[in-house]
Amino acid sequence: ASLRGISNSTSGNNHFSLRTHSCGEVCSTHIGREVTLYGWVQYVRQDLFVILRDFSGLVQILIPQDEALRKTLFDLPLESVVMVRGKVQLRPEGQENKTMSTGEVEVCADSLEVLNKCRKLPFEIKDFVKKSEALRMQYRYLDLRSSQMQYNLRVRSRLVMKMREYLCNLHGFVDVETPTLFKRTPGGAKEFVVPSGEPGKFYSLPQSPQQFKQLLMVAGMDRYFQMARCYRDEGSKPDRQPEFTQVDIEMSFIDQAGIQALIEGLVQYAWPDEKGTMSTPFPSMTYEEAMRDYGVDKPDTRFEMKLVDVSEAFGNTEIQFLRDALQQPGGCVLAIRVPDGAKHLKGKDLEALKETAKTQFNQDVSIVLVRPDGSLKSPLSRLLSEGARLQLLQMTLASAGDLVLLAAGTGDHMRPLLGKLRLQCADLLEGHGVALRDPSVFHFLWVVDFPLFLPKEDDPEQLESAHHPFTAPVPEDTPLLYSQPHKVRGQHYDLVLNGCEIGGGSIRIHSASEQRYILKTILQEDLSVLSHLLEALDSGAPPHGGIALGLDRLVSIMVGAPSIRDVIAFPKSFRGHDLMSRAPDFVSEEELKPYHIKVTWPEGDK
Amino acid sequence: ASLRGISNSTSGNNHFSLRTHSCGEVCSTHIGREVTLYGWVQYVRQDLFVILRDFSGLVQILIPQDEALRKTLFDLPLESVVMVRGKVQLRPEGQENKTMSTGEVEVCADSLEVLNKCRKLPFEIKDFVKKSEALRMQYRYLDLRSSQMQYNLRVRSRLVMKMREYLCNLHGFVDVETPTLFKRTPGGAKEFVVPSGEPGKFYSLPQSPQQFKQLLMVAGMDRYFQMARCYRDEGSKPDRQPEFTQVDIEMSFIDQAGIQALIEGLVQYAWPDEKGTMSTPFPSMTYEEAMRDYGVDKPDTRFEMKLVDVSEAFGNTEIQFLRDALQQPGGCVLAIRVPDGAKHLKGKDLEALKETAKTQFNQDVSIVLVRPDGSLKSPLSRLLSEGARLQLLQMTLASAGDLVLLAAGTGDHMRPLLGKLRLQCADLLEGHGVALRDPSVFHFLWVVDFPLFLPKEDDPEQLESAHHPFTAPVPEDTPLLYSQPHKVRGQHYDLVLNGCEIGGGSIRIHSASEQRYILKTILQEDLSVLSHLLEALDSGAPPHGGIALGLDRLVSIMVGAPSIRDVIAFPKSFRGHDLMSRAPDFVSEEELKPYHIKVTWPEGDK
Repeated sequence: ASLRGISNSTSGNNHFSLRTHSCGEVCSTHIGREVTLYGWVQYVRQDLFVILRDFSGLVQILIPQDEALRKTLFDLPLESVVMVRGKVQLRPEGQENKTMSTGEVEVCADSLEVLNKCRKLPFEIKDFVKKSEALRMQYRYLDLRSSQMQYNLRVRSRLVMKMREYLCNLHGFVDVETPTLFKRTPGGAKEFVVPSGEPGKFYSLPQSPQQFKQLLMVAGMDRYFQMARCYRDEGSKPDRQPEFTQVDIEMSFIDQAGIQALIEGLVQYAWPDEKGTMSTPFPSMTYEEAMRDYGVDKPDTRFEMKLVDVSEAFGNTEIQFLRDALQQPGGCVLAIRVPDGAKHLKGKDLEALKETAKTQFNQDVSIVLVRPDGSLKSPLSRLLSEGARLQLLQMTLASAGDLVLLAAGTGDHMRPLLGKLRLQCADLLEGHGVALRDPSVFHFLWVVDFPLFLPKEDDPEQLESAHHPFTAPVPEDTPLLYSQPHKVRGQHYDLVLNGCEIGGGSIRIHSASEQRYILKTILQEDLSVLSHLLEALDSGAPPHGGIALGLDRLVSIMVGAPSIRDVIAFPKSFRGHDLMSRAPDFVSEEELKPYHIKVTWPEGDK
Repeated sequence: ASLRGISNSTSGNNHFSLRTHSCGEVCSTHIGREVTLYGWVQYVRQDLFVILRDFSGLVQILIPQDEALRKTLFDLPLESVVMVRGKVQLRPEGQENKTMSTGEVEVCADSLEVLNKCRKLPFEIKDFVKKSEALRMQYRYLDLRSSQMQYNLRVRSRLVMKMREYLCNLHGFVDVETPTLFKRTPGGAKEFVVPSGEPGKFYSLPQSPQQFKQLLMVAGMDRYFQMARCYRDEGSKPDRQPEFTQVDIEMSFIDQAGIQALIEGLVQYAWPDEKGTMSTPFPSMTYEEAMRDYGVDKPDTRFEMKLVDVSEAFGNTEIQFLRDALQQPGGCVLAIRVPDGAKHLKGKDLEALKETAKTQFNQDVSIVLVRPDGSLKSPLSRLLSEGARLQLLQMTLASAGDLVLLAAGTGDHMRPLLGKLRLQCADLLEGHGVALRDPSVFHFLWVVDFPLFLPKEDDPEQLESAHHPFTAPVPEDTPLLYSQPHKVRGQHYDLVLNGCEIGGGSIRIHSASEQRYILKTILQEDLSVLSHLLEALDSGAPPHGGIALGLDRLVSIMVGAPSIRDVIAFPKSFRGHDLMSRAPDFVSEEELKPYHIKVTWPEGDK
């Protein structure tokens, strides 16, 4: 303890600790220095060397010919925790390890103390040891020792810190915590309920602090942010978590361009150096353009293969299903070109594409191969006029060796289909070794001008909010609210990264009467549940807007993790289970009594 | 929008906004400058001036003799939101307002636009307007407009930011989020339950991330912190909240002194300048000393009036109840001296003190007044020997005009009583205008060497953990674990500020066998529920320790708020209600079905 903080006087990773240095920082500038290190036994070599690991890396400890020391070393299980005191020295010539940051030196031990012996572990802590995700989750405290998980959690922490600096220190944002025990949203089927001590009354865990952030603007808070824990009960959706974190932001006296500029600055400021530089402003695309060109509202712009409307080529076609399609209202023929598709995609790939179209969209897709002579290999080709063939090649820019996917029907139906097939083609091509989407490239994109309302799926005569009912209309569309609400665009913006939606926000409605009209007349909602918000808008609400970024998703893309579970310390399984502690778990009837609830067991259970 | 960010190029409170300046920053350096301001109408004066308010303060707007402008102004409700464009000018001589930071200048309006008219509010936004707490809570978005609440939330945000800088940027801590949907602790009566989609299975909202922070140490995270949301269902306790925030910290390879030094540095670094400087290290006191001198384990050291053991003075007393008391095992006579008590405390004050002793401790307390001649005014004085009188005066240092409170019984019973009366005396003295506890003074204090176990209240033969079962024993007491566990001191430390416990922590047990022995043999707990933690300790757990600070309480003391509700944006009422949204609320039977629960209505209800 007398050596505490010897290496640093008032800060650093070792200040306050019992160690003098961390393992990974020992280097040639320390030669001759007495050091005290603490860490885990990574491995033992030749009964002579211990490789010691801590969060910062590895260092080689030389165990001299000393009876007591050798005895301690003997039979020491890997992953045991030890303290080492010793002197840093250069490794003998030829024994340097260039792959190790501390590889020039070693620590010659004076003493080695075993602080905690390790049992036989269910898996080794070596990056190359593959283990099932279930095993990783059950022993998460071991899994987190891997260098990849250490990196992921540390990079996340640094990113969040930089975001806070940008928001709080540079731009006057106030970090305000909002409640997570809140009132249930009617019809909020995805909200967890929390029974209270009053019979029949429940709190609910909110999906976002939306109401609170707006109320903070009414409260004159001006600029709010929070790393907000949010909750969503979605059962078993892949790569979703029942609790997740969003970077939640709201500002008064701001317009859409202002929020977008803020977020561009935020991402640029917080982005880790090792992930390359980022240029701003981010490109922007309207919802209509995104759907037209990519068939999806969150386009992955890292590669082409855009959707092309080739209806014109088939104006006079004799092919019956194309004619039928083009005769419907909104009917069209859409195509995507897969460059060199004939070379890379095999029969079973093409079957997989057709299968997707059939099962997910109940739709046929025609796959056309362009032969070296420009002729088409396809069941359609016999019925295709020469003019149509040439026009199709010209419109899609397809040439020898390419594949062209064709689908015919209404645009609203075909675009999502081809958007999906486009991504599936990309996966298939990458499966065959084509480098299509560079994992070190980050394509940020704004998607704007969303429709404010969409027809309800189960009752298309009725409208529902495309995002949420607090989004303000685009100013020039406001008059349409009262005549053709389905044509109104919202002041909503989505932030897309590499084809994933990582954020969304809007300028909010600040007029109580407009909000009331939308809720009551257009959406036919019960106003009483939102009466406090409507009252607030009537109480001097400033114009305001905001955004929320999905932190887990953003970090997972940044570090190239296959799942958000890899950037969360203790995630739930896709069924919502904590495999380590076995949550959720049974609770006795007795313990539920104070909450006035009782389990209703399904027939045959219990 | 073309003026966006005119005052600052890349940062500041106005960058990205539609305004050029905030109201409170306009000053004489801006004279002649065109500004665009947004804010709330604080008041209108002489149909000529609008006082405009935003988060930063007030500024005077001069409305020139312009028909259109005057018309807008006419009948403009207070708290309406307006945009003003105009030129900054010096106020005419003699019209400066020294009480206003912008009082030298005014803005001569070119245009004034009403962005949102305000309805008649339930109360005015003036600091001097008193309103009930229920009204404040119902209209929290108005209440937060007060300068005091703006200050409280902003100072909290800055404090948290400074703490993060200290932990993350200066000392290598990793900010890790831990789950709030966790497994129920058996007997965790204060944990909210959250029904899952699986019949009979529940998550629980944890009271702290204790298990996770320890598991992160086993995971090699080295230094963890989190501003952690915690949950506690305590029904209606005054000044408690069902959700609250703690600054949660854990470190590996650290001792008690290291954690204490870290926290002293943390508080010193983050403490706002305007609250004065802070000297470190903080004073420290053992649990035994605290109980002996103050009768409580969280002494308010801002004032004296310590407990004095005056048993010796009554060694040969003829007073029966004192003799009886002294003859019991652990019996004693304790006193506190109230300086000038005779002058300040009246008959009903003394009755109140006796009442407390009687109702809360079922105990009599004798109150003795020291007359100018040194004689005592008390029913006891007749039976008191001259020697005893002199010794009592000498031991308590009491002199003319002082009061002495005497209580006799076992020390374990008398100390908490006199500790309580000491605080009540302080309240009473302050009620009479005696300045005893300076609100601008902050007395931090460590209390250490707590007993590791205490007898269970309902079964004193059984021991329970004084804090939690993961606290390590003081090393030299470890052998006592196996022989006299009630004598073992724990490596636990409490941080006390002005008589409030604002934090507590400990060095944890890292040996699985020691942890198993304590849980199973001493505490007689079921090991199976903690099997994952015991396995983790067996898997190379480093020595580690940590602490948690109650952020809400710390901030409330710092800003001198009467309740933690004044430093939380949207607190619950003391019955756990959100008075604004009316949470918790009823949820339909239908909506509970997916969770397989049913409300059990008490007899006669619904």
